[in-house]
Amino acid sequence: MQSVLSILKAIENGNITPKAAVAQSLDAIAAKDAAVGAFVALPDREATLAAADRATGPLAGIAVGVKDIIDTHDLPTGMGSPIYAGNRPPADAALVAMLRDRGATVAGKTVATEFAFLRPAATLNPRDPAHTPGGSSSGSAAGVAAGMVPVAIGTQTGGSVIRPAAYCGVAGYKPSFRLVPMVGVKTFSWSLDTAGFFAASAADVAAFVTRLTGRPLDVEPVDPSTLRIGLYRTSVWDQADGDARAALSLAAEGAASAGASILEIDEPEILAAAREAHSTIQNFEAGIALGFEYAHHRDRMSEILRTTLEQGRAIAPEAYDAARSVARRARHETGELFQHVDLILTPAVTGAAPHGLSSTGSPVFNKLWTLTGNPCVNVPGAANKAGMPVGIQLVARFGRDRLALSAASWLESLLVAGTAPER
Amino acid sequence: MQSVLSILKAIENGNITPKAAVAQSLDAIAAKDAAVGAFVALPDREATLAAADRATGPLAGIAVGVKDIIDTHDLPTGMGSPIYAGNRPPADAALVAMLRDRGATVAGKTVATEFAFLRPAATLNPRDPAHTPGGSSSGSAAGVAAGMVPVAIGTQTGGSVIRPAAYCGVAGYKPSFRLVPMVGVKTFSWSLDTAGFFAASAADVAAFVTRLTGRPLDVEPVDPSTLRIGLYRTSVWDQADGDARAALSLAAEGAASAGASILEIDEPEILAAAREAHSTIQNFEAGIALGFEYAHHRDRMSEILRTTLEQGRAIAPEAYDAARSVARRARHETGELFQHVDLILTPAVTGAAPHGLSSTGSPVFNKLWTLTGNPCVNVPGAANKAGMPVGIQLVARFGRDRLALSAASWLESLLVAGTAPER
Repeated sequence: MQSVLSILKAIENGNITPKAAVAQSLDAIAAKDAAVGAFVALPDREATLAAADRATGPLAGIAVGVKDIIDTHDLPTGMGSPIYAGNRPPADAALVAMLRDRGATVAGKTVATEFAFLRPAATLNPRDPAHTPGGSSSGSAAGVAAGMVPVAIGTQTGGSVIRPAAYCGVAGYKPSFRLVPMVGVKTFSWSLDTAGFFAASAADVAAFVTRLTGRPLDVEPVDPSTLRIGLYRTSVWDQADGDARAALSLAAEGAASAGASILEIDEPEILAAAREAHSTIQNFEAGIALGFEYAHHRDRMSEILRTTLEQGRAIAPEAYDAARSVARRARHETGELFQHVDLILTPAVTGAAPHGLSSTGSPVFNKLWTLTGNPCVNVPGAANKAGMPVGIQLVARFGRDRLALSAASWLESLLVAGTAPER
Repeated sequence: MQSVLSILKAIENGNITPKAAVAQSLDAIAAKDAAVGAFVALPDREATLAAADRATGPLAGIAVGVKDIIDTHDLPTGMGSPIYAGNRPPADAALVAMLRDRGATVAGKTVATEFAFLRPAATLNPRDPAHTPGGSSSGSAAGVAAGMVPVAIGTQTGGSVIRPAAYCGVAGYKPSFRLVPMVGVKTFSWSLDTAGFFAASAADVAAFVTRLTGRPLDVEPVDPSTLRIGLYRTSVWDQADGDARAALSLAAEGAASAGASILEIDEPEILAAAREAHSTIQNFEAGIALGFEYAHHRDRMSEILRTTLEQGRAIAPEAYDAARSVARRARHETGELFQHVDLILTPAVTGAAPHGLSSTGSPVFNKLWTLTGNPCVNVPGAANKAGMPVGIQLVARFGRDRLALSAASWLESLLVAGTAPER
């Protein structure tokens, strides 16, 4: 995979120019994407390299894949839907404007499922093309996993960053709610939609986000002996298969061996209830957010989307308000949990990437944390017997993004080095 | 002025068809707007009437002015800026899709100041064309005040709903934060931007919003003897002129005479601090939200906007986070205030509409409540010696929108009937 940190270091040392670094990414896309299908639109190569040659800023030389529900003024933004085929927004999304302001290059638009919901797209998992890369940020995860770009941007409403990162074996980072702007990103559910980032490792994603936002998010060393990690199997543990359970145990035992305290946490009732409230909030808001598309173009929607919007439109405001009340109490309860632990260690996925492209997999282990707004990182490094990645997830207190990334980097190093016990 | 309730009643009684009701509004626009300048784009008359003839739903027959920063798929959305001249969005904003779903008619796009910020637009105050109608929802307030439409939609980031409503002598309602969707509305500050509504009276605006949202927000009778009203002069009381002070006293004395309890509230320190934090949050977020426009089109921005964006871009994330922390504490403190009172009565504006069009007036009495997210209503009915309207503002606990509207309707009736003591 391409590494943000390696590229930045090579540029800093004068071993490569920003233009040449971007050219490497564009070359990799040209060579590999036919077999993966991560990109849906690419910019003109010469114009892009000329712009990269002029770029200044802390992200000069970094080529970024941008999920195709995020507006770009110079590339079509198709939303994964025939309704928006060829759509050309008048402006860049705020995140894209930030990227460019810092010198980064948009290397292309990455495949999104239809309005970032559940209908699978055609992207293949670079680890094994017989498997889904997950969704809805399918192309962003696959583009990084295949070594085509060092970074890609996605979004998560249920589990659309953490899940594809877990299936593709890359680091995925969902920031604290509204740490990064959503202006110019197609809305599915305004209370839930959260932009996130994919890179080869937690340290890479942290380096990128530090330079993007100006916030000190670079990973720093953690002292395992001071870490209190809550092992949080959730009340839907029965949906985790053997691979997911083994990966979680591997991580927990590795962390314990390294000196961290592991505390078992039973899921509080209100957090189990919040997992259900997520659907009510998501569907009610989607019914409103996609009201124009439903009124004018429902014949060009997938069955699963149309049905979900109809369910959402049938939810009474009182039921929505009740779900929001559950969400508020869940956020408070999550804050209480973090009185006792520094981090929560929990499955990222129910197992390795499902076979075939008929489903993008289950977000059941993600949607609670999208609702609470806590920062989450998919930690890569574990795999099943077939060699397919199985992610595990670290969750930190709201606003403690740097700790989430730093601890993820530490845990990743244990998993990658194989210092964690064998299963 | 046109009245939502009167139109709906006439339709219900068979005295007018929805099509004829819409035709009355379109006729009024054709007759009056040359002298006011409330509208910036109008739909084709015949097609609009044909659609109104087919319309079904609880808002059939209601013509609505839509602020020109709110996307419409069939009318240009110019954002009050030459950068977006002729811009044609691919979809309706969620609010517009809701309007149409309920049978309402978009009667035209109303004049907005540049990106809903401070540069004055050319709209005149229908009460006296020598005065500003206020901003940034200039055309929405003026369109209702001039009797061209029964309802108009605006947005408020500082005081852009309550202030123009107060200057034009109409009811203005800023709902609880996120009660109505912002999808498809140009973002200035995502933590602050709030859509709101203008109508002839509080009862009219409540009737409209009830039918729009499906929430029970219709005004109901209030028993003054049970009402505890906090008289909240704020720590910026020195900015209220004689007219504003007189209007507030008139309302407070009227309410007291009718049997309500009036409690004087000194502004808590954290709420005074929150008024300052508002600017930090607004400008930081605007610097990001308008990042593309700043990068590509800053030469086509007003000086005041460009300078504000530059100030915003210079704010460190830490200062922004500190301001958000103040905002959180202010929301908590506001909740505490509402343990002791049912409503807060406070100035809507510093006085009557300023003379001339060089300023849209001051939002100093509004921006705190935009930040806290509480529902606010401008209560019309008071005027200065020159006959210019002077609004007063009722604020309710978060989520108690129906109480805010009901009490506003009651207070409005006292002011209009002149049962309140003379000043």
